[in-house]
Amino acid sequence: MAAGQAEAYGPGERTVPTRARERADWDAETIHGILDEGYLAHLGFIRDGAPVVLPTLYGRIGHRLYVHGSTGSRPLRAADGDAGLAVCLTVTHVDGIVLARSAFHHSINYRSVVVHGTAYQVTDAEERATALDAIVDQVVAGRAADCRPPDAKELAATAVIRLDLREASAKVRTGDPKDEPEDLELPYWAGVLPLRRGYLPAQASADLSSGIALPTYLGG
Amino acid sequence: MAAGQAEAYGPGERTVPTRARERADWDAETIHGILDEGYLAHLGFIRDGAPVVLPTLYGRIGHRLYVHGSTGSRPLRAADGDAGLAVCLTVTHVDGIVLARSAFHHSINYRSVVVHGTAYQVTDAEERATALDAIVDQVVAGRAADCRPPDAKELAATAVIRLDLREASAKVRTGDPKDEPEDLELPYWAGVLPLRRGYLPAQASADLSSGIALPTYLGG
Repeated sequence: MAAGQAEAYGPGERTVPTRARERADWDAETIHGILDEGYLAHLGFIRDGAPVVLPTLYGRIGHRLYVHGSTGSRPLRAADGDAGLAVCLTVTHVDGIVLARSAFHHSINYRSVVVHGTAYQVTDAEERATALDAIVDQVVAGRAADCRPPDAKELAATAVIRLDLREASAKVRTGDPKDEPEDLELPYWAGVLPLRRGYLPAQASADLSSGIALPTYLGG
Repeated sequence: MAAGQAEAYGPGERTVPTRARERADWDAETIHGILDEGYLAHLGFIRDGAPVVLPTLYGRIGHRLYVHGSTGSRPLRAADGDAGLAVCLTVTHVDGIVLARSAFHHSINYRSVVVHGTAYQVTDAEERATALDAIVDQVVAGRAADCRPPDAKELAATAVIRLDLREASAKVRTGDPKDEPEDLELPYWAGVLPLRRGYLPAQASADLSSGIALPTYLGG
């Protein structure tokens, strides 16, 4: 994009939601921030005329998302052609449960990104290696440089697909419930139950050699 | 299903994964257990020939899943007909991050359910009311009975769709990384980083009337 131009991935025909438009955002920084806080996406594609949604890891490098998998997996095989594979990749973080006085106004505080586009197989060896590192580092930053890299056989068994961030939108809900004014005095508790974040202490593998300390990027 | 028959939702043509078949399970109890631990699904459908994946709440009653939304929302409108709407509803719980010595064997401990089928609009008033209660109770058990039920105007603005649990499969990964034998002595830490679960203390809405105690189902 041109220097000085505010970066955005929309709005476009497919990225304007029909509901809760006031929660929608196409700003690249917002979208990158939501994507970078996660590592699990739900990838949608069409198989035999029907939709399929599978959980998958992803990595982001600039304006590109990468997904990997076995060369035998259906979506990755289907993306292996000039036409690519039409996909929708969605990432959602739940931040809290919103309890209103009325059943109708119950909600979830969340941040989500929906990316529409066409995924293509990545065949360039260097781009494949960089993408695989990005997927590992998306889960645990710094880990790709602190493990054995894939060998030729593993690389041959791994497919990588790329989805350019062109049509994407974020949706964010924050804050208190929004009850009807006439409901505010009803005798029901109202507020937000925030989700707890983070990890429990790392558990060493039963077959871990003695003398290997927990790395600092895992809290060691 | 017949009394005494083990309940299962497969395997069928669409519910046998091409990858990691040993992790697949069609047992109804396993599938119900995974669904009942969550409340957020990713719903896939086809719009203008392309896949769309949106996060949504759901509720389960027996062998039926329910999703609700605005009567103006696209998937709910599209399900309003005799043909219904082809959907795929996926629920994923991440339990931990699996760090192997090799980049290739990095993984996630997770439990997921993928449901294929056709969603139909629910028009029966009693089934709609029961479904809406189930969606609220899926998020916070006991809450549907402790808030103002939807009034006629709210009900008129709410669409409910039903997806029967017929074609569904679960996938579960647990435990340590599975490294290659020749990698076990490599100088990299290996193990599992378990996700922390649960909620932080509930935060009362800024406009909550004084004297309303936190309900027991929220930790009060």
